[in-house]
Amino acid sequence: MKNVLCETLGVEFPLFAFSHCRDVVAEVTRAGGMGVLGIVSMSPEQLEAELSWIDERVDGKPYGVDLIVPSKFIGKSEGDGRAPDPAQVLAGLPEEHRAFAAELLKASGLDPDIPDADRIARMRSGANMTAEGAHAMMDVAFSHPIKLIANALGVPPKEMLDRGKAEGVPVAALVGTKEHAIRQASAGVDVIVAAGGEAGGHCGSISTMVLVPEVVEAMKDFGNRPVLAAGGIVTGRQMAASMAMGAAGAWCGSVWLTTAEAETNAAVKAKMLTASSSDTVRSRARTGKHSRQLRSPWTDAWEREGAPDPLGMPLQSLISEPALARINKMADAGHEGAQALATYWVGQGVGLMNEAMTCRQVVEGFMEDFAGAHETLAACFD
Amino acid sequence: MKNVLCETLGVEFPLFAFSHCRDVVAEVTRAGGMGVLGIVSMSPEQLEAELSWIDERVDGKPYGVDLIVPSKFIGKSEGDGRAPDPAQVLAGLPEEHRAFAAELLKASGLDPDIPDADRIARMRSGANMTAEGAHAMMDVAFSHPIKLIANALGVPPKEMLDRGKAEGVPVAALVGTKEHAIRQASAGVDVIVAAGGEAGGHCGSISTMVLVPEVVEAMKDFGNRPVLAAGGIVTGRQMAASMAMGAAGAWCGSVWLTTAEAETNAAVKAKMLTASSSDTVRSRARTGKHSRQLRSPWTDAWEREGAPDPLGMPLQSLISEPALARINKMADAGHEGAQALATYWVGQGVGLMNEAMTCRQVVEGFMEDFAGAHETLAACFD
Repeated sequence: MKNVLCETLGVEFPLFAFSHCRDVVAEVTRAGGMGVLGIVSMSPEQLEAELSWIDERVDGKPYGVDLIVPSKFIGKSEGDGRAPDPAQVLAGLPEEHRAFAAELLKASGLDPDIPDADRIARMRSGANMTAEGAHAMMDVAFSHPIKLIANALGVPPKEMLDRGKAEGVPVAALVGTKEHAIRQASAGVDVIVAAGGEAGGHCGSISTMVLVPEVVEAMKDFGNRPVLAAGGIVTGRQMAASMAMGAAGAWCGSVWLTTAEAETNAAVKAKMLTASSSDTVRSRARTGKHSRQLRSPWTDAWEREGAPDPLGMPLQSLISEPALARINKMADAGHEGAQALATYWVGQGVGLMNEAMTCRQVVEGFMEDFAGAHETLAACFD
Repeated sequence: MKNVLCETLGVEFPLFAFSHCRDVVAEVTRAGGMGVLGIVSMSPEQLEAELSWIDERVDGKPYGVDLIVPSKFIGKSEGDGRAPDPAQVLAGLPEEHRAFAAELLKASGLDPDIPDADRIARMRSGANMTAEGAHAMMDVAFSHPIKLIANALGVPPKEMLDRGKAEGVPVAALVGTKEHAIRQASAGVDVIVAAGGEAGGHCGSISTMVLVPEVVEAMKDFGNRPVLAAGGIVTGRQMAASMAMGAAGAWCGSVWLTTAEAETNAAVKAKMLTASSSDTVRSRARTGKHSRQLRSPWTDAWEREGAPDPLGMPLQSLISEPALARINKMADAGHEGAQALATYWVGQGVGLMNEAMTCRQVVEGFMEDFAGAHETLAACFD
C-alpha cells in the first residue's frame, strides 16, 4: 500500500496491533501489519526474552513496543525518579477500598483475602513508570530492532524522545484531545495516536469520528505529522473510514483479544464474542483514570452510588488487579460467580467482534474490507 | 451521485440537514442536499405556513419533516391519546426544580420568575407528541410534497408508517443502538438514522464509528435498508468515512447552527464557532432524556452533586426551556451573565465548526471534501 507509514516504517499495511501478547505481535507483523508489544508490566529481563522471541519469528519485519510513563505519578519519591517503597505504598491503601473489593469477592463465593505479595507483584508496572524503570526498559528495547516506541499516557519523557531520535526509531504517543496532540507534537513526538472515547483501556470522551479529523487538521501546523486512528476500530472498513478522514493508519487493541493467539482469559473471550457495543463501561474504578472495559457485576458495583471513589494511579490498580486476576483465574476454572464478574479492557468495537479468528485472518480481513470500502466510495462516482 | 437515496428520494447528494429553521431546510435542498424540518414545536397552522414557504422556494426539489412521538409520554391522559391538561401538568412540577432554576437565573442577575404562561407555551411540543396532535400535524405534512417523514424518538406510530406507505413517502427513524434499529426495521421503518453518542440533541452512548457498521450489518437481514450516519458529522470527509462503512448518506444537525441562515441565538453561535470538541456535555437536565449540548455554567450546575434529579419527559423541559429562552434572549441583548449561561444542543463536531458560512457553502464544502476523501483512499492503491 502507498502510505506515509508504509514508507517510513517499512510496514506493508498500516494496521497497528497493540497487544501484551508476543504471539499477537509477531503474527500481525508477519501478516503485513505492525505488532506493538505492551511492555509496562514486564521486567527488563522478561522484555529481553520477549523481544528475542519476536525477533526470531518476524524475519526482520517491523514491530514496536509500548510503555506507559504518565506525567503524574502518585507515590513517586519526590524528585529522584525512583520507584516508591512497596510497604509504604501498601500502607496508603484505604481500608474502605480493600473491604469493598473483598466484599464483592466474598459475595460471589470467592476467597476475599488478597495477600500483600499479590499487590506488590502488581507494582512492577509502577516501577516501569518511573524515570529509572523506564530507562532500564528502554535500554533493552533499543538493543532490539524495534521500529516504533510508543508512550501510552502523556508526553513521553525526554529520554525516550532523544533516544528515539538518535536510534532513528519514531516515537508515538496516545492522545484523547486535539490539545494533547498539539502538546505532543510540540514536544517532538513523531506519530500521534488519536484515541477516541470508544476505545478500550484508557480513553478520553471525544469520539474517533470527531477526534481524528480534529487532530489531522491540527497536525497541519506540524508538517502533517502522521496520525493513527484508534478507538472502536475492529474492521478494515472502519480503518478505511479513518484514513478517508486523513489518518495514516489504524491502531487497534481490542480486536486481537479474541484471536487464537491472544492469552485472553477464556471466560472473558467468550463474553467478548457475544457482547454488543452497549456492553462496555468507561470507568475510573480499574486504574484511577478513565478506562473502557467489559461491563460485569464487578464494574457495576464500583459504579453504583456509595461505592468508594477511585484512588489515584497506580493505587487503584493495587485494589482492582489482584482481585480481577483471581476472578479471571477462577472463571477459567469453571467458577460460576467468577465467570459472572470476569471482565477486561475492551472498546465499543466489541459489538463487531463476533467470530474467533487467527491474527492472520484478522489482518487479511482488514485488507479485504479496506479494499471493499474503497470500492464503495468509488461506486458513488460511477 | 450514484446512491440508493439519490435514486429513491431524488436527492443529488445524500446529505440530510435536520433543522428547525425553514431557511436552512430550503437552502440545503436548493444546494443539492435534503432539508428536513423539525416541526415538533409548531402548531398545525404554523406548519402549513412553513411548508408553503418552503414549497415556493425549492422548485420541487426534495425536503422532509421530522416529528417526535416518543413511545413513553409522561402526563398523557390514559389511553385516549389526547394532550394532558396544562394546569394539571404545571401542578406536577416540583418546587425543588423550579427553585433550582430560579436560583441560577438570580445568581447571574436575571429575573428568576417564570410565568406559568411561558411554561404552558412550551407544551405545544407535548401536544404534538400525542396521537391526536401527531395526527393533525401529519394531515398538514402529507398535504405538501414531502419526500421523507422522520420520527426522532422510538418506533413511529402506526399511523405514520401507514400513511407514509400510502403516500409513497419513506419513513425514517433515529436510533442509538443496533437493537433499536432492528426493532424499527421490523416495524416497517424505511430509513434508519444511526445516531452516535457524539451527536447533538438526544443521543445514546455508542459512537458513530461503531454504531454505523453495526447497524449496516444488522440491516442485511432487512434487505439492506438504507442507513444514514449521524453524530459528529460536520464535514464531507466524515460523511465519506461513514459511507465507506456502508451508510447511504449523512444526517447532520449541528453543522447548520452556525450558518448565516440559521436562527441560532447570536451569543450561542459565537460560542459554537470557538468551542472545541471537549466543550459539550451529554446530560439529562434539559429534556429528561440524555441530550448533548454546549457546556456552560448552566449545564455545569445541573450536573453538580446535589442538583435536582432530572424529571421525566416532557416535564424537565418545562423547567429548562423557559429559563433558557430567557437566558438566550438576554444574552443577545448583551447581558453578560446571560451570555455566560447561554447554551444550545450541539454535537462534538462543534470542534470542527470554526467558520460562519452559508448553507450553500456548507453543502458545497461537503461535496468537495467528499471527493477529496475518495481521492485519499484511491491514492493508497496507486
